[in-house]
Amino acid sequence: MSGYRVGVLGATGAVGSTILRVLEQRAFPVGELVPFASARSVGKPIELAGRNYRCVELGDDTIDGLDIVISAAGGSISAEWAPRLVAGGAVVIDNTSYWRMHEGVPLVVAEVNPADAARHRGLIANPNCSTMQMVVALKPILDAVGIERLVISTYQSVSGTGRRAIEELRAQSIALLEGGAEPTADVEVEANVYPHRIAFNVLPQVESFAAGDDYTTEERKMMAETRKIFGLDADQLGISATCARVPVFGAHSESVNVQTTTPLSPEECRALLASAPGVVVVDDPAASGYPLAFEATGRDEVLVGRIRRDPSHERCLNLWIVADNLRKGAATNAVQIAELLVARGLVSVPTPSLVA
Amino acid sequence: MSGYRVGVLGATGAVGSTILRVLEQRAFPVGELVPFASARSVGKPIELAGRNYRCVELGDDTIDGLDIVISAAGGSISAEWAPRLVAGGAVVIDNTSYWRMHEGVPLVVAEVNPADAARHRGLIANPNCSTMQMVVALKPILDAVGIERLVISTYQSVSGTGRRAIEELRAQSIALLEGGAEPTADVEVEANVYPHRIAFNVLPQVESFAAGDDYTTEERKMMAETRKIFGLDADQLGISATCARVPVFGAHSESVNVQTTTPLSPEECRALLASAPGVVVVDDPAASGYPLAFEATGRDEVLVGRIRRDPSHERCLNLWIVADNLRKGAATNAVQIAELLVARGLVSVPTPSLVA
Repeated sequence: MSGYRVGVLGATGAVGSTILRVLEQRAFPVGELVPFASARSVGKPIELAGRNYRCVELGDDTIDGLDIVISAAGGSISAEWAPRLVAGGAVVIDNTSYWRMHEGVPLVVAEVNPADAARHRGLIANPNCSTMQMVVALKPILDAVGIERLVISTYQSVSGTGRRAIEELRAQSIALLEGGAEPTADVEVEANVYPHRIAFNVLPQVESFAAGDDYTTEERKMMAETRKIFGLDADQLGISATCARVPVFGAHSESVNVQTTTPLSPEECRALLASAPGVVVVDDPAASGYPLAFEATGRDEVLVGRIRRDPSHERCLNLWIVADNLRKGAATNAVQIAELLVARGLVSVPTPSLVA
Repeated sequence: MSGYRVGVLGATGAVGSTILRVLEQRAFPVGELVPFASARSVGKPIELAGRNYRCVELGDDTIDGLDIVISAAGGSISAEWAPRLVAGGAVVIDNTSYWRMHEGVPLVVAEVNPADAARHRGLIANPNCSTMQMVVALKPILDAVGIERLVISTYQSVSGTGRRAIEELRAQSIALLEGGAEPTADVEVEANVYPHRIAFNVLPQVESFAAGDDYTTEERKMMAETRKIFGLDADQLGISATCARVPVFGAHSESVNVQTTTPLSPEECRALLASAPGVVVVDDPAASGYPLAFEATGRDEVLVGRIRRDPSHERCLNLWIVADNLRKGAATNAVQIAELLVARGLVSVPTPSLVA
């Protein structure tokens, strides 16, 4: 066998299937794939790089001997199985939120803090999608002039919620269009995935509200994860996040107001970002050139445009940041972490393992 | 004849037809309606309060003897015809952007600065839709604790662009859904109204970019009109606006970060807004209660929710503000201005008329 024995948890889901595609597209050295799925998908065929596999369930007999596992199952599955996979010798790259803020678990974005991967004790967390694309765009600014405060409003697609949400947006859209959707239409449609209909609507709620909190879990993640990735505390970097779901299938858009420590002109910012890894500047207002959700879909880069001075603050810039939340926001970064592990000789679990 | 002779310019358009509906619903004392439309709609029947009218064209023979004219035609039509209508004795309430920033023209929001209507010299301007709903929600906060700075991101519906945009969103949505729209779909659809497709996409451009400007005309309007309505200059009130178009038929949503002059708690803010005219507080996160675009459609009130402290600044609050851009954002406020004129005995043009 040449290459690694790679497990993918949640292999049939929206993120999991994107991970398989990205592994193939980036020619990651997979010696053997073990696609894990829930009971009802066991036996389902999965193709990777011309070879055929079948989905298996997580179990004592299936988790041994893996080198790298990328998890795109739910948080509760990662909570239970990540330590067991690590104990079995695998380095786990976890795409759920469960381990991200744990002290001993590095939270890594390939272009931002790759060195943190070296501190892993078997487990590396992959950040939340909306955080991921933002920090890739902000890192060059942080390094050049410092960042004191961020005021963020997001326009998030349904694909991050999974296949059922994609289907719900489709089904609701069709139902409303058949009903002759007019601005004043009062057609009822079924809403199962989100608390309200998403088709032709905007939901100022992404994920859930923890008891008594007036910020959503998604907004809390953006604030906490951004600081952890940048290695800054709340006194050093203030963050306000408002996360909204829009009727878009793929790619999150973000309106970000950035207050820098020392002034940065839009021209300097554009130049910084143009040479930054993983970033593409799309910024030609006169020709209506700016990042678009549907054009970012399927791409690995983070697109940045509408770069301009905020007239209300001499050290603030406004940015429009767009990326495919399933790719750079999830799968691509997870595979990039796997590449990092290989390139830096980190595909081994220190003993004793201390993930928790 | 009991009641006023009321002209409506652009009577067959998206805003114009909403003005007719609002005049009827609010039982405005229309003695006779004169619906103005473009040449191709001349003769088209229009019903108002059980009476039938036919559309006429603007002309020397049709503009005399009107008491009140509400204009929802284009800016160039208002530029040419508003002074002529005023010269003919009508008080003109103009919904276009053309006259809004003119020195001698009051820019009036019924709940915010009604007293300014008394200063009219024949012409009163109706603010831009995205500005309108925001200032209604902000006025009670301004009065209570002062406002120093606003950082705004909008989620605007297509209805503000007019009937063709509504049709374009419908047609593109159908084409994409028939093509089996998946997050990675690369289906081409025709885009005529906007520079890019709007269906299942977000456009960080509302209206156009003036030559050399990196802010859109919509963003410039929000910044300039808000200050004029509040009677504050740029040193007193800093504003940063990012305006985006989302695939929603009716109602604009806005994420607004408000920096007050003295601190205001979310509870105090909620209490202020709950008793403010034209505002409805919808703010129950635990029950997923917040303003929604599709629920605001057809309503006259401005809905406000997600009221919470911005953790990055001790004097900042975040608000989510939603309203029907055709109603409160345009038609309803125009009719409210007409009501103001009637209630305060202002339906007359001072001589000499000085509109420009």
